[in-house]
Amino acid sequence: MSVTAAQGFEAAGVAAGLKSTGKPDVALVVNRGPQKTGAAVFTSNRAKANPIMWSQQVVKDGVVEAVVLNSGGANCFTGSFGFQTSHLTAEKVAEKLGVSAGDVVVCSTGLIGTGDEVFRQKVLDGATAAAEELSDDGGEHAAHAIMTTDTIPKQAVRERDGWTIGGMAKGAGMLAPGLATMLVVITTDAVLTAEQADAVLRGATRVSFDRLDSDGAMSTNDQVTLLASGATGIEPNLEAFEAELAALCLDLAEQLMGDAEGASHNIRIEVRRAATEGDAVTVARSVARNNLFKTAIFGNDANWGRVLAAIGTTDAEFDPYNVDVSMNGVRVCSEGGPDRPREEVDLTPRDTHVVIDLLVGEATATIMTNDLTHAYVHENSAYSS
Amino acid sequence: MSVTAAQGFEAAGVAAGLKSTGKPDVALVVNRGPQKTGAAVFTSNRAKANPIMWSQQVVKDGVVEAVVLNSGGANCFTGSFGFQTSHLTAEKVAEKLGVSAGDVVVCSTGLIGTGDEVFRQKVLDGATAAAEELSDDGGEHAAHAIMTTDTIPKQAVRERDGWTIGGMAKGAGMLAPGLATMLVVITTDAVLTAEQADAVLRGATRVSFDRLDSDGAMSTNDQVTLLASGATGIEPNLEAFEAELAALCLDLAEQLMGDAEGASHNIRIEVRRAATEGDAVTVARSVARNNLFKTAIFGNDANWGRVLAAIGTTDAEFDPYNVDVSMNGVRVCSEGGPDRPREEVDLTPRDTHVVIDLLVGEATATIMTNDLTHAYVHENSAYSS
Repeated sequence: MSVTAAQGFEAAGVAAGLKSTGKPDVALVVNRGPQKTGAAVFTSNRAKANPIMWSQQVVKDGVVEAVVLNSGGANCFTGSFGFQTSHLTAEKVAEKLGVSAGDVVVCSTGLIGTGDEVFRQKVLDGATAAAEELSDDGGEHAAHAIMTTDTIPKQAVRERDGWTIGGMAKGAGMLAPGLATMLVVITTDAVLTAEQADAVLRGATRVSFDRLDSDGAMSTNDQVTLLASGATGIEPNLEAFEAELAALCLDLAEQLMGDAEGASHNIRIEVRRAATEGDAVTVARSVARNNLFKTAIFGNDANWGRVLAAIGTTDAEFDPYNVDVSMNGVRVCSEGGPDRPREEVDLTPRDTHVVIDLLVGEATATIMTNDLTHAYVHENSAYSS
Repeated sequence: MSVTAAQGFEAAGVAAGLKSTGKPDVALVVNRGPQKTGAAVFTSNRAKANPIMWSQQVVKDGVVEAVVLNSGGANCFTGSFGFQTSHLTAEKVAEKLGVSAGDVVVCSTGLIGTGDEVFRQKVLDGATAAAEELSDDGGEHAAHAIMTTDTIPKQAVRERDGWTIGGMAKGAGMLAPGLATMLVVITTDAVLTAEQADAVLRGATRVSFDRLDSDGAMSTNDQVTLLASGATGIEPNLEAFEAELAALCLDLAEQLMGDAEGASHNIRIEVRRAATEGDAVTVARSVARNNLFKTAIFGNDANWGRVLAAIGTTDAEFDPYNVDVSMNGVRVCSEGGPDRPREEVDLTPRDTHVVIDLLVGEATATIMTNDLTHAYVHENSAYSS
């Protein structure tokens, strides 16, 4: 399933010893064609890891033969040695597949600053082993090999009009937007030009991964790659394709939210009647990043005051004294004052829905986030990642 | 001490039943003159509490007779009834003192949405009682009465050239900048015009309270008020006065950092060689607000990768591959790569010093923040505030 659900793809996941647990840590996804279309979006963090800098060059011509991914080390801030490692990894895969290294995307995740000679050798050996284990049902193995603190692999598949889109994702912390924010590989057997692939990928990620903001921390390494094999020979209706791709990305984003480090609530913050979509996103993101709001939800406390205090720090168009806030269907604040008693809100379910009505315009947007919990603090203070 | 250290001031703190614990919760500070100069800075949160909206009008003419403060309820998002409460509180104090209500500043702190008739009556009764208990050594009582989750009162005094400045502050959560960020009252017996008081207060808070960012959450209620009685008859050297005022504000800000909710580290993030002071503040604040950095410090982990990842999200002028990072004197990152082993850094002391050298210009700035701990999550999830 996942990246091998569409025709024309093979994948593998192997254990190369990067993870101290001995679990799989190198994945490979190969496009067997006939088309080799590729597009990608990258973290907008200015502190970019070596594999990001390598892969940005690879996707420029719209041709991608394969994606090789490793967990167990970010190869970020590891200097020119680290960049060489990304380059050598691509060369190793290219050699095994008989393609050009310049068409091999490299992704890494793990601790920043990890990328020494031991790391390099393990990644190269892992890439070799993965190339030898490629199979057309290897998607499940690949999805496992990219996990870090994820507790479950994230996979999704959608079919329509004869073509299929499949994807895998990893991400459990440092989930915040700025284009891509985690490692994701998506494959399709539809026929797409490089320009079409780029356009639909940007359109789909804008309303899915970019709306996920688990802990406000933007990664140095994350990347979403789309590969199209054209194996069905079907040229899709592009609007339909982008809609399905967005739905698949949203599905993966929701899986990421559901498995975020230490979280006990999946929180959808929906802003309605904003002046612009940008305003709606700004307001929802400000609430999503407010630690006092996040801890209140953890404590099952419908603390709408903390919502309004967070909205007040934005430059969005709104009147602080004419805002409605509902939580799980109970309007706790109307016209900037108390409405129903907060005790009426049941925040015990994991799924939490906060609706903020700005009463200004017509635009709407939803940000997906998580609560701030003891487990989040534990997971991020007890272990380096 | 504190607000009654300077000549010409009286203060009181009384228990009015706003706090369920029965502890003091209404404070009053009165300027007996001969001058009645006042200036204030307010939260820049657009969601402003009723006492803020009242007090902004009061200070416009540069004359302030008294400041009345309550804990146990923020009187924020309590509608026109709440604004009336602030107005009535000022009138009650004015009536007792024989002054104009338009010269009485009102400050409130506590849970947003709290401000019903019971609250109003308790505040009014408390204001009456405080006015009857005024004394020229009541500063200590006042400092206690404004505490919320603070564990200790915050007070400071500085003397120079014959004049004195004294101040009190409260604040333990929702500490983030945007002009004022907590309740602070400062008194002086120096002679100041309203324009001078306004200028020195803005200058001093810009480099003290505005550099405190404990948890990234900006309050709706916070305010710093400066009262000058002119009781010494001394016209101070303004540069010297602003320097002493800034030192006093920094002292209080450090006390706030030291008593921040649930914190186990006081973290100074110093950015050196930035292109501008604005860039230095932006970079330091981005790191201060990064939950992964904050949890790493809680875990005594010198995780410099999280520092660089946070810097990378800013638009400050810097080269991600030419940045040095030191923690408690150990340079763990140089030229954007690993330097000394992170294990060499001793993060067990409460005081933590992170130095980020951007190697670009001449500007520097320090942001004071705290770590993200289990106790912070507990305090902000188990109780409404």
